Amino acid sequence: MLKVIAIFEYMRKILAMIGILKKKPVDKLLEALGKEKVNTSIVERKLYSYDATPIPIDRAVPSAVVFPENHDDVVKLVRICYQEGIPMFPRGAGSGLTGGAVPTKENGVVVSFERMNRFKVDENNTTAEVEPGVITAQFQEHVEKLGLFYPPDPSSFKYSTIGGNIAENAGGPRCLKYGVTREYVLGLTVVVKDGDVLKLGNPVIKDVAGYDLTKLFVGSEGTLGLITSSNLKLIPKPKARATALALFENLEHVGRAVTKIMTSGIFPSALEFMDRDAIKAVEDFKPVGLPRDVEALLLIEVDGSPQSVREDINQIKGLLEPMGIRVKTAESKKEEERLWMARKSLGPALGNLKSGKINEDIVFPRIYLSEAIPKLRQIAEKYHLLMVIFGHIGDGNLHVNLLYDKQNREEEEKAERAVDEVFELALSYHGSITGEHGVGLTKKKFLKWQFGDIGYELLKGIKLLFDPKNLFNPGKMVEV
Amino acid sequence: MLKVIAIFEYMRKILAMIGILKKKPVDKLLEALGKEKVNTSIVERKLYSYDATPIPIDRAVPSAVVFPENHDDVVKLVRICYQEGIPMFPRGAGSGLTGGAVPTKENGVVVSFERMNRFKVDENNTTAEVEPGVITAQFQEHVEKLGLFYPPDPSSFKYSTIGGNIAENAGGPRCLKYGVTREYVLGLTVVVKDGDVLKLGNPVIKDVAGYDLTKLFVGSEGTLGLITSSNLKLIPKPKARATALALFENLEHVGRAVTKIMTSGIFPSALEFMDRDAIKAVEDFKPVGLPRDVEALLLIEVDGSPQSVREDINQIKGLLEPMGIRVKTAESKKEEERLWMARKSLGPALGNLKSGKINEDIVFPRIYLSEAIPKLRQIAEKYHLLMVIFGHIGDGNLHVNLLYDKQNREEEEKAERAVDEVFELALSYHGSITGEHGVGLTKKKFLKWQFGDIGYELLKGIKLLFDPKNLFNPGKMVEV
Repeated sequence: MLKVIAIFEYMRKILAMIGILKKKPVDKLLEALGKEKVNTSIVERKLYSYDATPIPIDRAVPSAVVFPENHDDVVKLVRICYQEGIPMFPRGAGSGLTGGAVPTKENGVVVSFERMNRFKVDENNTTAEVEPGVITAQFQEHVEKLGLFYPPDPSSFKYSTIGGNIAENAGGPRCLKYGVTREYVLGLTVVVKDGDVLKLGNPVIKDVAGYDLTKLFVGSEGTLGLITSSNLKLIPKPKARATALALFENLEHVGRAVTKIMTSGIFPSALEFMDRDAIKAVEDFKPVGLPRDVEALLLIEVDGSPQSVREDINQIKGLLEPMGIRVKTAESKKEEERLWMARKSLGPALGNLKSGKINEDIVFPRIYLSEAIPKLRQIAEKYHLLMVIFGHIGDGNLHVNLLYDKQNREEEEKAERAVDEVFELALSYHGSITGEHGVGLTKKKFLKWQFGDIGYELLKGIKLLFDPKNLFNPGKMVEV
Repeated sequence: MLKVIAIFEYMRKILAMIGILKKKPVDKLLEALGKEKVNTSIVERKLYSYDATPIPIDRAVPSAVVFPENHDDVVKLVRICYQEGIPMFPRGAGSGLTGGAVPTKENGVVVSFERMNRFKVDENNTTAEVEPGVITAQFQEHVEKLGLFYPPDPSSFKYSTIGGNIAENAGGPRCLKYGVTREYVLGLTVVVKDGDVLKLGNPVIKDVAGYDLTKLFVGSEGTLGLITSSNLKLIPKPKARATALALFENLEHVGRAVTKIMTSGIFPSALEFMDRDAIKAVEDFKPVGLPRDVEALLLIEVDGSPQSVREDINQIKGLLEPMGIRVKTAESKKEEERLWMARKSLGPALGNLKSGKINEDIVFPRIYLSEAIPKLRQIAEKYHLLMVIFGHIGDGNLHVNLLYDKQNREEEEKAERAVDEVFELALSYHGSITGEHGVGLTKKKFLKWQFGDIGYELLKGIKLLFDPKNLFNPGKMVEV
């Protein structure tokens, strides 16, 4: 018997030497974190290889999905992955639209932060310490009960996470007045190469010591390291809100109306734009009584004290009506909700029109909008595509939706070609290829257009400084 | 005759060969830019070797002061300096307090942006294109006439420049509500190594393409490259302002009062703090009628519509008076100005007390202030120094002033030792060594404390990525 064991042991040693019984990299993760936190089932791995990107992208089924439960788990994970050369694909809710959370290498692991979902509000400091897996809406509801406010409101806010919002520097309608996610991230704890831990920033608003590495991480799309905790700034919750609707017969009046408002001492908390086709889409899908005979509309929201919001809405009426623009005020909470419902149901309404939709979030300096919108429509006409435009006009962030038939490969290709022209147009007007969605996989080629060669080299340099082995979300945003 | 010329020519060639007639690096600058823009007089060079830093620092007299007049001048300048290895020390108004604008190498040149002082407001886009030499106050006055607002208000705003403000990420009282300079810098044109030009960002609020190099330049203290133009965000100018004064018998009530206000739906545009010694200093210097028998006071400013500011002030009274805190409202414009005068005359008032003053702008998370202030006073007592504390309490940014006799070397050394302890205290409470003034020369050793070894290595990596020859403001902030 002992002889048999000895022979087996001998064979094991030989096999180990030639590498057959050598532990796979993922086994080391399993050993360090346990199988509760490292899932290698094919179902789970396939499930976590998707995000919400609407166009075909190169995805890979990862070798595992890891669910860290705390900071120390992430440190262990990064240390092993960096030693073993395992690519890491961090993931919030997977609601991104540019492939940011999608794994692209089969030897990689998806790092899902869904179990790191604790937060602690510090009322006396008007800040909060928040783990990356906290759902934005749940955090917002909580702080609002304390009289505080966390403004960033990407349309995914009901399911997207704070970590994902930080990685993408998420925006939304309110960002016109309140700024984007970056403005609310005061500090971060991040795990970088080799499992090193960096504490960046502090729970204070002012901190000018050194280069601002905190803000460099915001919007870095998970390519520099993994975030395990954030210090977020909170502000006082406005006491009241009011909404008005402005109706335009003429596109050119839209820009002028926005300027009138923005130079009148009123700071709207949102200025949302819908073009005639967007209005039509909503009314066809779920009628809320918007007029179909106008060229565009603006949804205008103001916030402040109960008295000042009434004052502001009246002042806006007084500014726009002499320009021949009809202004309707939402007289009740219900009417207000109905108007915002129209804006929010745009996504599903468009999904109802055609099976395929490319929603690009380009940005134009506001002055060029009335010039650019007809040019955008020309692009759609050239390719015989349906185009619907809406978005946050106060900051020039337009959502240009190209609709096509998914079964029709020819039409799909046309839509992809049209997108290229849409980006070229935005850049020709000193705009940006993305105001909210990020670069991810789908906008990589356009990033070079926006940064130029020298700028792009610097982006690469920063990436390699933090991640010399290119293991944090490799292949996203910048190609090294 | 011809023979004589030939001999001279021969000698010239020999001298050139052995390098005596070789052009000095500064001659190349003179040749490229002309002597109107390159001043090598000893008077000018000595004049430009200072800034407003109140403590002794290692300065060098530069080899020239260069006055570029436009973007192309800067490109030429950087190209030559990078080829010839000439250190460049960019300078706004020289009002910085940490040595950021001071030349430290004799072969270097000071680059003064005072002639690049043009700006163009784009009302319809609520943005402006601004050259670095524009004086902040002049820009602000101009935009306010258009109903627009550029909030950053460092106390130097009457003479400091936009370029300097960007380099230092300047703050001020209003930043509690409106954020610091960084939040207003949408785009930058910068000249980096070899004279390469980078156009970063765009005149749009939302832009999430690539790492945020624009914000990385903000607060980089001139160490990454030279800024030739900026796109600044403007916001609507508030219609009205109102001020109240809250008087505290007990330091611990200050923090609680701030929390009460910040969770009541009111967002103050400034919350300024003065301790008992600050009050005393002002009243001794230029009496405005502040009570001398209180432990501290808060100056509270709100802005908004004429009605809402009255509402807000009344609400603040209602919140604080039941806590036993006396609240006085400024009933007239004149009274308001008088109160703000008290705050603004603090600088000169302190200068009047002692010949030496170290004004450190540390930051504490607000919750720790009532605990930290007594500890700060203990440090002063330990070294038998006079300490006066005031600052922007809403964001935890305290100006801790250590006063001493400049002629008394022993007292000066004590003040320097006390400063070390002040920084240690700030860091022990998760604060920052600088909220507004930057690192420059004087806080270099403390930067390492704040970032740790790994963080500091990354700062160095970024510096060398943009400036591999270490020629942009070398020796400042981070040591490479």
